[in-house]
Amino acid sequence: MPRYEVLSEAQLLEIDRGWKRILSEIGIQFDHPDALELFRKAGQRVEGDVVFLDPEFVTAMVAQAPSEFTLHGRNPARQMHVGGDWMAFAPVSGAPFSSRRGVRREASFADHVDLCKLCQVFDELDTPASLVCEPNDVPMDSRHLQIQRNVLTLTDKPYMGASISGLATADSIRMAEIVFGSREAIEARPVMFVIVNCNSPLRWDTRMLEAMMTCAAAGQAPMLTPFLLMGAMSPVAIGAALAQQTAEAFSALALCQLIRPGGPVIMGSFLSNTDMQSGSPGFGGPESALGLLCSGQIARRYNIPWRSGGGGLTSSPAVDAQAGYESFNTLNSAFLAGASVVMQSTGWLESGLVASFEKFIMDIEIVKMLQVQYTPIEIDLAFDAHQEVGHGGHFLGAAHTLERFRDCFYRPMLSTTENWDRWTRNGQKDAYTRASDLVDRTLERWERPSIDDGVLLELDEFVARRTTELGD
Amino acid sequence: MPRYEVLSEAQLLEIDRGWKRILSEIGIQFDHPDALELFRKAGQRVEGDVVFLDPEFVTAMVAQAPSEFTLHGRNPARQMHVGGDWMAFAPVSGAPFSSRRGVRREASFADHVDLCKLCQVFDELDTPASLVCEPNDVPMDSRHLQIQRNVLTLTDKPYMGASISGLATADSIRMAEIVFGSREAIEARPVMFVIVNCNSPLRWDTRMLEAMMTCAAAGQAPMLTPFLLMGAMSPVAIGAALAQQTAEAFSALALCQLIRPGGPVIMGSFLSNTDMQSGSPGFGGPESALGLLCSGQIARRYNIPWRSGGGGLTSSPAVDAQAGYESFNTLNSAFLAGASVVMQSTGWLESGLVASFEKFIMDIEIVKMLQVQYTPIEIDLAFDAHQEVGHGGHFLGAAHTLERFRDCFYRPMLSTTENWDRWTRNGQKDAYTRASDLVDRTLERWERPSIDDGVLLELDEFVARRTTELGD
Repeated sequence: MPRYEVLSEAQLLEIDRGWKRILSEIGIQFDHPDALELFRKAGQRVEGDVVFLDPEFVTAMVAQAPSEFTLHGRNPARQMHVGGDWMAFAPVSGAPFSSRRGVRREASFADHVDLCKLCQVFDELDTPASLVCEPNDVPMDSRHLQIQRNVLTLTDKPYMGASISGLATADSIRMAEIVFGSREAIEARPVMFVIVNCNSPLRWDTRMLEAMMTCAAAGQAPMLTPFLLMGAMSPVAIGAALAQQTAEAFSALALCQLIRPGGPVIMGSFLSNTDMQSGSPGFGGPESALGLLCSGQIARRYNIPWRSGGGGLTSSPAVDAQAGYESFNTLNSAFLAGASVVMQSTGWLESGLVASFEKFIMDIEIVKMLQVQYTPIEIDLAFDAHQEVGHGGHFLGAAHTLERFRDCFYRPMLSTTENWDRWTRNGQKDAYTRASDLVDRTLERWERPSIDDGVLLELDEFVARRTTELGD
Repeated sequence: MPRYEVLSEAQLLEIDRGWKRILSEIGIQFDHPDALELFRKAGQRVEGDVVFLDPEFVTAMVAQAPSEFTLHGRNPARQMHVGGDWMAFAPVSGAPFSSRRGVRREASFADHVDLCKLCQVFDELDTPASLVCEPNDVPMDSRHLQIQRNVLTLTDKPYMGASISGLATADSIRMAEIVFGSREAIEARPVMFVIVNCNSPLRWDTRMLEAMMTCAAAGQAPMLTPFLLMGAMSPVAIGAALAQQTAEAFSALALCQLIRPGGPVIMGSFLSNTDMQSGSPGFGGPESALGLLCSGQIARRYNIPWRSGGGGLTSSPAVDAQAGYESFNTLNSAFLAGASVVMQSTGWLESGLVASFEKFIMDIEIVKMLQVQYTPIEIDLAFDAHQEVGHGGHFLGAAHTLERFRDCFYRPMLSTTENWDRWTRNGQKDAYTRASDLVDRTLERWERPSIDDGVLLELDEFVARRTTELGD
């Protein structure tokens, strides 16, 4: 289906002028000597820790990045195509709290396991990412090892490497080498992406740069993400935010291309607004939607894969009507914008602080709906059915209907069309309660994906050794 | 903002062939001798009560209908522009039940009054329509008089005349003559639209035809609406349903143009699907959305105003997450489709059986959001703000922000961005509970629109006399 384009060519040119001016006149701060050295060698002007980037150099680096690539799952049938006309979906990522059957609490390792299982069961998700919630009961220093082990053993899809530090990213890559056979294997066929957030405005910090450079060097896909809440990390104007987002993402993209020419990269976007009354972030409103639509146009202009912030965003603290319409707004906008990777598609609640199991189910339903909704239509005039039924009759028993009734329409998983009497007999379960039931039933459907015993042993030995080394 | 087009030119041509073939080969049943006579005189082939329409004749009648027109409110500042680039919004219509603060019951006159008041207060609604709910405690035969009196006295916007019978439509028109001064006044400046539903497939029944012809003769705007649930009133194929919808609507449009050449008409659409498992209607899913998007393209092709079925549709029995995402889906699709009149925008619940006060508030919030979302963007690069803040700072105190923070973003009415602690301190009110509170606060804001004492007296005398005549 076609994309929905809201910016005119003149407006796109204006935004182009904007990011070029930011890069060349204000520059980007890179808190890492290796990054500064790489840019210096590439002929860019470096003053202190600020790099002033030549727009022509940046444009050349962007053109050098692949317009599409594939991440390979442990299961060869699970591939994640990134870029081009593909859309891939990832669940909530990074939530410190979990919520299930009305209980909101610090997220735990058990929550992480169950959320990974949901990611494995639902074919709508191309990847579990990895940090579906923070397993707060696992010691911090070695937590990334347990998270990576979970996604590598409970799921068999392409996934996300750790990015809390360069060391954590290196550990992720080492674990991938164990599972996929060798460094050469994953360099030839990348298996993971790594989210790297900009310390917006206009600054990449040491920790993120180490993760980014480690990821790029290994031929995995860095997801270069300016996280912009207009009013806090960017000006309160969508044009300014888009120019800044492009400048920040492209500056990192250029660095990644210097490290590994032609290596896979994903332009990131996470653009919404600050609620200027409460000072809290606002997700799911018009600003989130416009951020998505505009970012898609910019990414297509440069023919590079891009991630949307969401998918599935809401500021609501409850899985209520607000969560329903805000989540739909961002997921639908991600479809209209043609996001290559829709992050935070399922389970995000309370501005991302909570991984909600019920919201996860609700968002899967929305993704299912939208996948049908944005499938190109085929025209069947069914003139014989009209001739058969004539005037004032009905089509329930028409031959055309009987041949097609099983799969002619979208069949909901969560939504109900029950009438009041039947709904009442069935306990007046609202969408939240029905989603709770579906969580339980879905977890029962999970099957452990097979893994070679020797590989599992080596993985566990690595995790044990590194856990000891990291001092937990 | 641009419309979103899902049908190709070839597909539109295919649908054109479809409706022309239905009209010319199967024909439309008209259960009224006057209608048959008008078609016969216009050279159309009539066999029994079936009219076989010449596509060229129909196309000429469609071309004769105005592409846009204005309905005038009792308050001259309240105009409803129909067609062209305008979108007008109307609330739920025809619900037999009401629901408020958790109580679902047969709708009453008191509910009708309160819903009319909400329609008057919210500027997002261009019209209260009229049957915002069924006032079941008013005797059936004279109910339309009380309904018309309510919309004429509790609101001052353009509105909807009664269509339960030709007599009821005639009473509506007489009441409009009293309020607006004369028959000539309302013929010169129409004040109402009248929904006329097709007895699909391919049949217009006596009662609807009398309402339609009475409305058209008085120069008011008939809204000619095929009500198609695929699988029941139309084949289980969107192309077939679109061809049928166009055939049905155009057949009535041709009749209206024969009665009053150049008179205002609105092409209707109410296209969704039957849930083939439950047999219940399904609203708010992909089929509803595609029905809207495609209908918009067809109406634009013929340059005529059209109504969308909804706006605000859901099959959910509760104002829950499902109601949130389904309602958003249909309202958003109505925007993308550029519906001239969005019926059922606010308050529709339980497949239209219930007028929910809380859903009304929720839908107003969605309409507000979408009005901002689909306002063309202006690009402001705010380069000075970037220069001021530099690397790693924040924009909360930037001059650019301080000048704009009050109205730079959408300010929600119902949605919350409160963090957990604050939300908990405020009573953990979900969207439903907050909407209940907003219903009360909104009703307090209602002010009776002024009306001339003499006019009110005449109106009340008419209602009293007709009530007696109608035997209640």
